[in-house]
Amino acid sequence: MAPRAAVSERETAAMRRAIELAARGLGHTRPNPVVGCVILGPDGEVAGEGWHRRAGGPHAEVHALAEAGEAARGGTAVVTLEPCNHTGRTGPCARALLAAGITRVVYAVPDPTADARGGAATLAAAGAEVSGGLLRAEAEAVNAAWLTAVRLGRPLVHWKYAATLDGRTAAADGTSRWITSAASRADVHRLRAESDAVLVGSGTLRADDPHLAVRGVPGAAQPLRVALDTEAAVVKPGARILDGAAPTLIAVADDLPAGRTATPGAEVVRLPRADGGRGLSLPALLAELHRREIRSVLLEGGPVLAGAFAAAGLIDRVTGYLAPALLGAGPQALGDAGITTVSRALRLAVTGLTRTGPDLRITAVPAPAAPEES
Amino acid sequence: MAPRAAVSERETAAMRRAIELAARGLGHTRPNPVVGCVILGPDGEVAGEGWHRRAGGPHAEVHALAEAGEAARGGTAVVTLEPCNHTGRTGPCARALLAAGITRVVYAVPDPTADARGGAATLAAAGAEVSGGLLRAEAEAVNAAWLTAVRLGRPLVHWKYAATLDGRTAAADGTSRWITSAASRADVHRLRAESDAVLVGSGTLRADDPHLAVRGVPGAAQPLRVALDTEAAVVKPGARILDGAAPTLIAVADDLPAGRTATPGAEVVRLPRADGGRGLSLPALLAELHRREIRSVLLEGGPVLAGAFAAAGLIDRVTGYLAPALLGAGPQALGDAGITTVSRALRLAVTGLTRTGPDLRITAVPAPAAPEES
Ligand SMILES: NC(=O)c1ccc[n+]([C@@H]2O[C@H](COP(=O)([O-])OP(=O)(O)OC[C@H]3O[C@@H](n4cnc5c(N)ncnc54)[C@H](OP(=O)(O)O)[C@@H]3O)[C@@H](O)[C@H]2O)c1
Ligand SMILES: NC(=O)c1ccc[n+]([C@@H]2O[C@H](COP(=O)([O-])OP(=O)(O)OC[C@H]3O[C@@H](n4cnc5c(N)ncnc54)[C@H](OP(=O)(O)O)[C@@H]3O)[C@@H](O)[C@H]2O)c1
Repeated sequence: MAPRAAVSERETAAMRRAIELAARGLGHTRPNPVVGCVILGPDGEVAGEGWHRRAGGPHAEVHALAEAGEAARGGTAVVTLEPCNHTGRTGPCARALLAAGITRVVYAVPDPTADARGGAATLAAAGAEVSGGLLRAEAEAVNAAWLTAVRLGRPLVHWKYAATLDGRTAAADGTSRWITSAASRADVHRLRAESDAVLVGSGTLRADDPHLAVRGVPGAAQPLRVALDTEAAVVKPGARILDGAAPTLIAVADDLPAGRTATPGAEVVRLPRADGGRGLSLPALLAELHRREIRSVLLEGGPVLAGAFAAAGLIDRVTGYLAPALLGAGPQALGDAGITTVSRALRLAVTGLTRTGPDLRITAVPAPAAPEES
Repeated sequence: MAPRAAVSERETAAMRRAIELAARGLGHTRPNPVVGCVILGPDGEVAGEGWHRRAGGPHAEVHALAEAGEAARGGTAVVTLEPCNHTGRTGPCARALLAAGITRVVYAVPDPTADARGGAATLAAAGAEVSGGLLRAEAEAVNAAWLTAVRLGRPLVHWKYAATLDGRTAAADGTSRWITSAASRADVHRLRAESDAVLVGSGTLRADDPHLAVRGVPGAAQPLRVALDTEAAVVKPGARILDGAAPTLIAVADDLPAGRTATPGAEVVRLPRADGGRGLSLPALLAELHRREIRSVLLEGGPVLAGAFAAAGLIDRVTGYLAPALLGAGPQALGDAGITTVSRALRLAVTGLTRTGPDLRITAVPAPAAPEES
């Protein structure tokens, strides 16, 4: 392998840009990763940019090379994921980079899959300088859904909730329109657009008759709408999720009589009931979604279902919209998660804190370690 | 009145500094306002600084003039509150400023009290340039407690709570040590030190036996510890609030037999019961505290008492410490506040958002207007 030149500031800036480009693919690329690529010409200037736009379409590197043209010769490819080595639906990117005259490749995340890995070795063996690991954490974050699927064989679960500062998701009379601002609600549509599927329980279906499709996000792919309706008792003809605006999957118990479950406007899947718990088996649900190449699920509630996911250790990411308001009564954002004492609290690490209109938006992931004590 | 020269950038910077200086007096000056003063010499340079350190001590202007000495002659006084006109425990500041040769006075907030107001007019009549209203909102915020007392005849009520992201202040088994971080807990001691009194209800007394004194804040004045124990049933000898570390006031119902209420280590005040509601009359409590020259009360809970204050429209400021953790069960930060539907939610405006260790600290005040709708 050629000796590695130190990563330059321009390459770091290009990687940041490549991660931004990769994010544009969120919601469009399943079962593939999102990938961004920036080609720097021999002079270090940006010569081409690309991202993987949809599964089956060209990889990020191919888009970026096409934009760079002859300027790629003697240049550097900066790419968020190790260039692939296999011939999938498109040719291997390692080969394409070499053919375009790229002499240096900087990537962020090594490819963890058996059939795609090895691109770095192929490139190095052909004489290119190769450097891995630049901005790896940031690049892993944008690809968290795909990496979760590769590592755990299930989709990433992203729990979204909206609540008042005192943790209420609705008032005592059940009204919840609107606790959070229009800006927060628009942001939820962005989250849906970035997700492969959106999931709710039968309590939310009954209370809110939600639509769950993406509105107001130009170019968005519609997620699969998934409804857990164990007894096939709640989703009735006329339900808004049956309107065809997005595909819909209704999960029911596999021990129901077959006649009860047909639902025009949706596909029905039969799943085993939860072991000892309420409703359907969550591992079976996630395995079924994985089989359908769903890589990320936006869990939109309600509190009972979110509690069940939390109890099972199946929440990978949290986005909370907190409205600057107090209610003092009404249902909570999170229901019973089997946690009875403070030392067993589900600790998170805050990854982002911003305002959406008057509201606060907090993003977090489960924290590995216990918090400071005194 | 002399024509007003435009306020200079230096004067604005000096006012910002004066507001900072004023804040140092928080917790020490009752029943007086907090006041900060910066003297700029004729060259515009800072010549002296001062703040009102304690009731009965010199006013901010006097401290600042002493530090400036001869440099005050021909200079400008920048002061957060209109200089007083009366001879209280100390001489009138308007006179002192003129005697020191100050020729220009810039203040933020006009004095709203009948016996102190008129300082600006006195100064102008004596030939000084006078300009009011500079950074008025910021200067009013630092003096909110005193201004509330002047305008409403009651102390400012500052509700503090600590909760998880899902709004729980304790786990299902009642454990709450520690939901928030050491940094958040230290910050609560700062809030106590800035308050004239700290208030809890009998539920918190029973559950937590809290101490409520300030620890770890150098130079802090201890607040009055106030406990609502309607039936004189909860605070028993040995309770931590009876340890003498700070003065303690126990409020009980005025219809209890006299023999039951004597409590060594605390003063006992007898108050009327709430009209129709639970416990003691909150207006009577606040009137009693006002009579005792308490200008700010830190309401430390619990949820039932906080709900009663919210229901009565008696919360002026909120500080929430949100730990990045989820519990899914356990008592809520805010109990019943008589709000049954979303349109009646107590809407707040966020005034600050910061991190205390791993936690989020949100400060807010009641919002006057309804939020955006869509
Ligand atoms: N503010 C927000 O962010 C937000 C979001 C969503 C909902 N909400 C509010 O939440 C309320 C409804 O929530 P909810 O908690 O009653 O209902 P939910 O969580 O939406 O649904 C719970 C139901 O899902 C079914 N289910 C299937 N498999 C399950 C499993 N493994 N674990 C748990 N449940 C499973 C169960 O019913 P079956 O087995 O009988 O089908 C269960 O009762 C509404 O008031 C809604 O407005 C608020
Ligand atoms: N995390 C936090 O920030 C925090 C802070 C404080 C407490 N806590 C937790 O809160 C729990 C205790 O809270 P709680 O809600 O049960 O009790 P609480 O709010 O501390 O006290 C309520 C009691 O105060 C008395 N009271 C007197 N006048 C009242 C009035 N006008 N309105 C309402 N109450 C009045 C009433 O009892 P009587 O009339 O019988 O005296 C009432 O039951 C504990 O678990 C504690 O750990 C958490």
